[in-house]
Amino acid sequence: MAATYDVLAIGNAIVDVLAHAEESFLAERGMPKGGMVLIDSDQADALYREMGPAVESSGGSAANTVAGIASLGGSAAFIGKVADDILGRVFRHDITAIGAHYTTESLVGGAPTARCLVLITPDAERTMSTYLGACTALTPEDIDEDLVRASAVTYIEGYLWDQPHAKDAIVRAACAAKEAKRKVSLSLSDPFCVERHREEFLELIDGFVDILFANEAELKALYELDDFDAAVAQVRGHAEVAAVTRGAKGSVVITGGDVLAVPVDAVDRVVDTTGAGDLYAAGFLFGYTRGYELAECARIGGIAAGEVISHVGPRPEKPLADLIKERLAV
Amino acid sequence: MAATYDVLAIGNAIVDVLAHAEESFLAERGMPKGGMVLIDSDQADALYREMGPAVESSGGSAANTVAGIASLGGSAAFIGKVADDILGRVFRHDITAIGAHYTTESLVGGAPTARCLVLITPDAERTMSTYLGACTALTPEDIDEDLVRASAVTYIEGYLWDQPHAKDAIVRAACAAKEAKRKVSLSLSDPFCVERHREEFLELIDGFVDILFANEAELKALYELDDFDAAVAQVRGHAEVAAVTRGAKGSVVITGGDVLAVPVDAVDRVVDTTGAGDLYAAGFLFGYTRGYELAECARIGGIAAGEVISHVGPRPEKPLADLIKERLAV
Repeated sequence: MAATYDVLAIGNAIVDVLAHAEESFLAERGMPKGGMVLIDSDQADALYREMGPAVESSGGSAANTVAGIASLGGSAAFIGKVADDILGRVFRHDITAIGAHYTTESLVGGAPTARCLVLITPDAERTMSTYLGACTALTPEDIDEDLVRASAVTYIEGYLWDQPHAKDAIVRAACAAKEAKRKVSLSLSDPFCVERHREEFLELIDGFVDILFANEAELKALYELDDFDAAVAQVRGHAEVAAVTRGAKGSVVITGGDVLAVPVDAVDRVVDTTGAGDLYAAGFLFGYTRGYELAECARIGGIAAGEVISHVGPRPEKPLADLIKERLAV
Repeated sequence: MAATYDVLAIGNAIVDVLAHAEESFLAERGMPKGGMVLIDSDQADALYREMGPAVESSGGSAANTVAGIASLGGSAAFIGKVADDILGRVFRHDITAIGAHYTTESLVGGAPTARCLVLITPDAERTMSTYLGACTALTPEDIDEDLVRASAVTYIEGYLWDQPHAKDAIVRAACAAKEAKRKVSLSLSDPFCVERHREEFLELIDGFVDILFANEAELKALYELDDFDAAVAQVRGHAEVAAVTRGAKGSVVITGGDVLAVPVDAVDRVVDTTGAGDLYAAGFLFGYTRGYELAECARIGGIAAGEVISHVGPRPEKPLADLIKERLAV
């Protein structure tokens, strides 16, 4: 049966609070640059007080991917938990306004909507501190199995493993996808996240994952290897396709029979790398669900990532469909 | 006595909600392109539902000017009313984090924090719909006269005239400034705003205003003239200095004895003109309070405006002090 949605993404529903910061700000607080740490409500308040003027933008890794797919002209759905508060309404407005299907019920009377405090250093790298709030209330009951069956790919962000209930929700979604002969995709999210949940990620990849997304550091962390080529050799055959991003070097697409290096065009001015991996996945899956060659999928991923790193914020500002038309003959 | 603050700005405390929109979106709703209209809470909800995905950024015309002065390395203070809610806390955080003095009490149990729905058309022009909310609760009691006396310039946004109580607050501030031999500055804000309050603006300018800011359309509206040069002739002598912005043509600085046209460097890519006038005023007043030549003041204004129109959002992303150092030998 033809899918109603190209991609259903399941992830944390987060509003990003983005501010510029000097390297010393991170160093003084022992913040791991380029990574994501979990913080509680008091820590979030304290860090917010100390950080510079900010802008707010709907974020969340998988939700950014959804925004990318919609901006490319694909059809997307999202499952993730916000609270019934102002930031929750902002998140819901933005993902709905971009054309995605989003009907997860808001949490009432519990924790507030999640926020991610993003510090952008002068080198355009982002360091994230996340207060998960209402996201921790995602349970298997939030998984609409009809929606899973109606989606060509169910895409799951690795960050979800940081919440105990979410794992059961993911398994429910992955099983429903497999039974319906749909594809399952996983993003490894963050090297620290991989360290926290390595064994479970390896099991999920072997059991369920068709399309794996990772960056170089995450793939190395998954196999506890320092050598990139050795990690590439390990992942072969464990997922139908693994797409590994390498920053300015482009990406590598690994299948059972092939390892394909796909370069990426240089970006004039890298302003903020927030959302780069999420948008790469969006571009790749957009091509994949249309049956494009894998190299073409990787190229679209690179173009989408290139747009999002050229401005502050984790979601595309320009319609990506127009950008792809300009840049590719697809 | 030396001033503690270069500029005290009094204005509406607003959070901007910025989204891209096609020309047709404005046309279908009869929205006056490039202008600002006032809307009520229900209208704001309805427009928000219809508009595209957005980003949130602290705004408010005079508050943007404060952000610009702080970013240039000047000292600034702000008076304006937010509510005790999430957006109010966002506004307070941002203006405090940029280094400005801001102690106006939040409104408790009344209207929510103001928001401005900003629609950015493909030509980078912005069209604004403002729900004033808590801003309408600004009263003379909110004017800290010691703060006025401690500031070299008290800068007032014309938009304040849209609230009945604010006028009394402005008069209190302007009188305190005059008595303390400080300067009073006014921004005409918007041609429609000028039409609404033309007589009162003319009186205020004659009675109190030393430094007047306007764009071409606002100056023409002030004197009900179609000819720019005729409007320039009218304003001479009514304010010590009038600085009139003309977009890509730069600005014109008018004094009793002189009319000075100051060009502006071309901007690589104009993305969103929100905040252009506010940042011009910031740059101009930064120079003015340091005793720079008026042409130099206008040039700094042009550089500050050039930064803010190169990205989405009404406040500088890069430290303007660094930009000025690069671009001028001051």
